[in-house]
Amino acid sequence: MKLSIIGLGRMGYNMAIRLLEDGHEVFVYNRTSEKSETLKEYGAKVIYDLKTIKNVLSTPRVVWSMLPAGDITEKNIEILSEILDEEDIIIDGANTNYKDDIKRFNTLKNKGINYIDAGVSGGVWGLKEGYCTMVGGDEKIFEYIEPIIKSLAPNNGYMYCGSTGAGHYVKMIHNGIEYGLMEAYAEGFELLKASKYGENLNLSDISKMWNNGSVIRSWLLELLEIAFKDDSSLKDIQGYVEDSGEARWTVNEAIDNGVSVPIISASLFKRFQSRQKDVFSDKVVAALRNQFGGHALYK
Amino acid sequence: MKLSIIGLGRMGYNMAIRLLEDGHEVFVYNRTSEKSETLKEYGAKVIYDLKTIKNVLSTPRVVWSMLPAGDITEKNIEILSEILDEEDIIIDGANTNYKDDIKRFNTLKNKGINYIDAGVSGGVWGLKEGYCTMVGGDEKIFEYIEPIIKSLAPNNGYMYCGSTGAGHYVKMIHNGIEYGLMEAYAEGFELLKASKYGENLNLSDISKMWNNGSVIRSWLLELLEIAFKDDSSLKDIQGYVEDSGEARWTVNEAIDNGVSVPIISASLFKRFQSRQKDVFSDKVVAALRNQFGGHALYK
Amino acid sequence: MKLSIIGLGRMGYNMAIRLLEDGHEVFVYNRTSEKSETLKEYGAKVIYDLKTIKNVLSTPRVVWSMLPAGDITEKNIEILSEILDEEDIIIDGANTNYKDDIKRFNTLKNKGINYIDAGVSGGVWGLKEGYCTMVGGDEKIFEYIEPIIKSLAPNNGYMYCGSTGAGHYVKMIHNGIEYGLMEAYAEGFELLKASKYGENLNLSDISKMWNNGSVIRSWLLELLEIAFKDDSSLKDIQGYVEDSGEARWTVNEAIDNGVSVPIISASLFKRFQSRQKDVFSDKVVAALRNQFGGHALYK
Amino acid sequence: MKLSIIGLGRMGYNMAIRLLEDGHEVFVYNRTSEKSETLKEYGAKVIYDLKTIKNVLSTPRVVWSMLPAGDITEKNIEILSEILDEEDIIIDGANTNYKDDIKRFNTLKNKGINYIDAGVSGGVWGLKEGYCTMVGGDEKIFEYIEPIIKSLAPNNGYMYCGSTGAGHYVKMIHNGIEYGLMEAYAEGFELLKASKYGENLNLSDISKMWNNGSVIRSWLLELLEIAFKDDSSLKDIQGYVEDSGEARWTVNEAIDNGVSVPIISASLFKRFQSRQKDVFSDKVVAALRNQFGGHALYK
Repeated sequence: MKLSIIGLGRMGYNMAIRLLEDGHEVFVYNRTSEKSETLKEYGAKVIYDLKTIKNVLSTPRVVWSMLPAGDITEKNIEILSEILDEEDIIIDGANTNYKDDIKRFNTLKNKGINYIDAGVSGGVWGLKEGYCTMVGGDEKIFEYIEPIIKSLAPNNGYMYCGSTGAGHYVKMIHNGIEYGLMEAYAEGFELLKASKYGENLNLSDISKMWNNGSVIRSWLLELLEIAFKDDSSLKDIQGYVEDSGEARWTVNEAIDNGVSVPIISASLFKRFQSRQKDVFSDKVVAALRNQFGGHALYK
Repeated sequence: MKLSIIGLGRMGYNMAIRLLEDGHEVFVYNRTSEKSETLKEYGAKVIYDLKTIKNVLSTPRVVWSMLPAGDITEKNIEILSEILDEEDIIIDGANTNYKDDIKRFNTLKNKGINYIDAGVSGGVWGLKEGYCTMVGGDEKIFEYIEPIIKSLAPNNGYMYCGSTGAGHYVKMIHNGIEYGLMEAYAEGFELLKASKYGENLNLSDISKMWNNGSVIRSWLLELLEIAFKDDSSLKDIQGYVEDSGEARWTVNEAIDNGVSVPIISASLFKRFQSRQKDVFSDKVVAALRNQFGGHALYK
Repeated sequence: MKLSIIGLGRMGYNMAIRLLEDGHEVFVYNRTSEKSETLKEYGAKVIYDLKTIKNVLSTPRVVWSMLPAGDITEKNIEILSEILDEEDIIIDGANTNYKDDIKRFNTLKNKGINYIDAGVSGGVWGLKEGYCTMVGGDEKIFEYIEPIIKSLAPNNGYMYCGSTGAGHYVKMIHNGIEYGLMEAYAEGFELLKASKYGENLNLSDISKMWNNGSVIRSWLLELLEIAFKDDSSLKDIQGYVEDSGEARWTVNEAIDNGVSVPIISASLFKRFQSRQKDVFSDKVVAALRNQFGGHALYK
Repeated sequence: MKLSIIGLGRMGYNMAIRLLEDGHEVFVYNRTSEKSETLKEYGAKVIYDLKTIKNVLSTPRVVWSMLPAGDITEKNIEILSEILDEEDIIIDGANTNYKDDIKRFNTLKNKGINYIDAGVSGGVWGLKEGYCTMVGGDEKIFEYIEPIIKSLAPNNGYMYCGSTGAGHYVKMIHNGIEYGLMEAYAEGFELLKASKYGENLNLSDISKMWNNGSVIRSWLLELLEIAFKDDSSLKDIQGYVEDSGEARWTVNEAIDNGVSVPIISASLFKRFQSRQKDVFSDKVVAALRNQFGGHALYK
């Protein structure tokens, strides 16, 4: 079908290709037009002014916003809402907080514009392997855009998750779990490396072996095979780990729902601490030990 | 090659079949002979008296002990060590603590008997998918028995991990990671279910979708698809979770090595608490809140 | 000085007495008048209609709201804001979220009414020992009401913490720490009781001893002495622990500020779980273990 | 009574003074004699050769070993056991593992020598405030040496805890709790400092206020008042925190007893991590995020 993709970052760019290869007619728009141009060879049509959308798409128009979550997406959807007509459809594929989806859905509903939230997983591998896609919103609208979702996703790799926000909610949980899984592997490998057997173990080989028949085999572990390949000591990588919001929301949600999430929260906190050079709480404990026990301070 | 398997539990029984199907000559021994008999149709030869091993196997004799770790295995290996000759090989496939491996290796070495520790993963699915196998001990002895390991494991699913204990050490870490992975999924699903979208979500469908293209796809998640299939509320299952020792040792090892393992330890502690009806620490906090704040007590 | 206290719960009632005993002229108001009546013998003057406040207090009028945080307090302050005049002062002594303080401060400022947030600690012991009080808002207004705070608090037991919200923020952190402290003691006593020495140890005696000269002596541990006094097995107390919000906010704040709080979050999650009969995440892990290892399920 | 103290470190030295001031006759021994000499002015008698103990003490001889736990204490007690006679009493006041106490007790029993384990808390403040002392061993022997314990401890600050090992076990739990308490305060102060109100808050003043009437007042918080006094940013202190073993044992014991200790373990792990410059598990997660999401690596 005809659709427009706004935002050609790591995700949006490859999603456009995947849709083009599956026969959709894709009008791409990006802040800077360079990336748009290179998509022409895949058959993309390029939009240089958002207002053009109104003319090039057939009604109900389908616009997929693939910008960074937060203010940028918010502003873009405001602009779109002024361009589009009643019945048109905006899909937000960013990692948006589900509460924002609900607000937006209501705002857009007042204008008669449809809103779909889509959580998209797959990262840089999505182009090749497909993007697992979790969709929330009005089920009829979902059915209308399903051909797009189907092209993006691998077989069985998408799902209508429920009313507005459900798509991003399920994606949020997905990412919360992801944090925990990564940390579980990371702890295991740290201990293995620190152990008496660690020096002689190639962690890429270990990952590969575990990926063949062990209980803990997974796609993440396959990626670890690759990550450890060149240098299983990772000596050139700094242990500085960013977080992109979903795990924070997962813990906030857990708190709101009275659900205990020791693993996901510990994984999040570990990342916070990975970015601190000078941990104040550790200073406090050091100072306190010095006070009561006369234990030496490191200065 | 010729070998004997002692212990035909869930693991040993299927391992025997896998070895038989790959052309090995397997002499099976079990405390009760019923299971041995049914293996005859796969071509197994049955031993009713351990001493027979000496006559039926060719030297160096290869005996695979697949009994529950701990006293039972310990005693069995003692008995075997009196039956076997110098150069013979005992392989322990149980989840033995690596420290016990080292003790045993030394004891057996004095008698000239070789000892190999093998960590075996794969559970009830191993028969079909192969057993991921981690081996420790003398490398030459590993090479000698490699054909057995190769038959047990899937392609690339085994590894020589290092000197005595290394096999069980790597398996211990594997299980520690497994505890963390399971808990990460479990937390995510608990929160999803408790959320406002939870009521209408089929967790088996969610698992299936995530297994197709998402970052968190894994074999464990495939098993969750099955586990949630009949009843995604799991209402007939009690949340009582046993632990079999390896995660305890993983945390102990982490402590000995000064390695921080918040995820694995939290996963282990969660299991402990799942088995408690009446958590004393919670009573203490309740009593304390009553003392300072006059907060109501539940009796 | 002259002031009115609205809300005579466990805290408000005793605070009124403490103020009366220190010579303040206190006009009390409560939803039901019974409690007000009994305060008369301490010298309190009773208000039966909030509007009376306007006449009985001298300007700038000082009204201390001591109602449950949340909607009840919110509504009460709205009502007060319609009764009071410019320059009058509302103090909220509830455990209000600091973000609500900031909103309220701005709303009231538009009407010229002053707003002070006061975090009050001390529980049922405050009457006798004084209430530790943390104050936020305009410093000049703080100075004006300081005589009240001084009467409520023990020597050195109050502080001006900064601009609006600071009082409740510091109180929130106080409570977050409190959760962690309680859980630390609780874990220690649970392990002590479960140990081989536990059966013969009287936990009240242990607490008392530790309170005399040990590093971990504290007021909470003194309360544990009392709590364990009659029955150190706490067999008549259910391990059901409520939480009143501040620790939730503490963890949320930590997330917003990228600060790692493993202890406070674990203490909060422990309370969540203490209230669950049937922990879904434990069911998930049990179901999963059954899938891969054939481990028995408890039904 | 007459006794000998072996080991005049931070603890032993002050304990000797406290005993001398309470009228005991104390024979001190230290590896280097300098410290012994300065104790002469408090009335100590100095021993330069351990064998002298036999002559200067009256039977049953009482010897208090106050050396670092582990090999040094072990060796010292071996030496003492060859010098002393049947009925004599060795007290170990170090932070010894209770399992070692049991081994030692049995070894010494074979020689007819009595062994008492004493857990001593109080740190550098013990001289002034008294040492909280937890005693294990034969109750009759405890009663015999009680006058010494009584002089060391503040009023009510000592306790006979049970059979051999009980004293050090209770001390171990005490220290485990201590780790949790310290971390709870540390987290709270870190968040307070990081918050929007943090810049203007003097943490020493906060501690002081909380120590007057708040629920979280404690001796540790009094020490924090002092620690924060000169510089509440602690900018000259490195957040490098040692651990001395008891919390490790506490977690190991918890694992052996199936008791969940999320707070104490998290506090211990936090210390481990405070000493790491380059956390391998963080590198693993960073590498993994780069693999699946193309997220930037810091090198």
